[in-house]
Amino acid sequence: MTSREPIEEVLDGYRTAVSAKDVDAFVALYDEDVRVFDTWGRWSYDGADEWRQMATEWFGSLGSDQVAVELHDVDTVIGDGVAAAHAVVTFRGLSADGEELRAIDNRLTWALRQTREGAWKIVREHTSVPIDIETSRPIPRE
Amino acid sequence: MTSREPIEEVLDGYRTAVSAKDVDAFVALYDEDVRVFDTWGRWSYDGADEWRQMATEWFGSLGSDQVAVELHDVDTVIGDGVAAAHAVVTFRGLSADGEELRAIDNRLTWALRQTREGAWKIVREHTSVPIDIETSRPIPRE
Repeated sequence: MTSREPIEEVLDGYRTAVSAKDVDAFVALYDEDVRVFDTWGRWSYDGADEWRQMATEWFGSLGSDQVAVELHDVDTVIGDGVAAAHAVVTFRGLSADGEELRAIDNRLTWALRQTREGAWKIVREHTSVPIDIETSRPIPRE
Repeated sequence: MTSREPIEEVLDGYRTAVSAKDVDAFVALYDEDVRVFDTWGRWSYDGADEWRQMATEWFGSLGSDQVAVELHDVDTVIGDGVAAAHAVVTFRGLSADGEELRAIDNRLTWALRQTREGAWKIVREHTSVPIDIETSRPIPRE
């Protein structure tokens, strides 16, 4: 069993890379073979190149705005070489002077794999919002 | 490293339990501490009791209909004690005489944990459909 600390470091790295809109730092959190089921726009991203393109477009679309990431209810399941994390994430859009423009909550699941060098990389990601079966609309977080 | 076989067995068990509408067999696939981010209706289910109640209501709502589960694009990341699986699932609603009534595609992520006895149990589940950011509506699978 491994301690939770390395997973917390990946979570911190995610917050920092998104806040800095730093594509290289963001992609460095992920395994080359990453596969992502994202909340928005398409069924899946396959491989680090597709995921880098998503990050480049996302960060590039922000102009002078920033995104602050908050993680809630984080829990981790840690094995030898593979770990998982489950959390609720709030993405807050902030103007250049720190005013909150919008906030979106997502559910987040990560599977992480440890490299030969001992670093933990995100190899599967799944983010979503739940859907109301009657209206087919996203359900706001309670 | 562990072989993929035990994870395939859990996938088979899932298909069989849903097809049989067998709540006990379904819940037996999950860890007591399971936490689920489900596609429909709410943000999270916490613990095997809440998940059993979901299964009881789901299977009970079907009357004489059945649900056939098909798994596509399954990939697994397997460590010592913890594993993850990513797949696309088709749930097909069938009438008692086998006629297809409806079909829904979901993205599925599992984190599995190995018990002391060696069995693999689902400890985190995340299912979803992606959302069109313009319309806030689910996007059909390509």
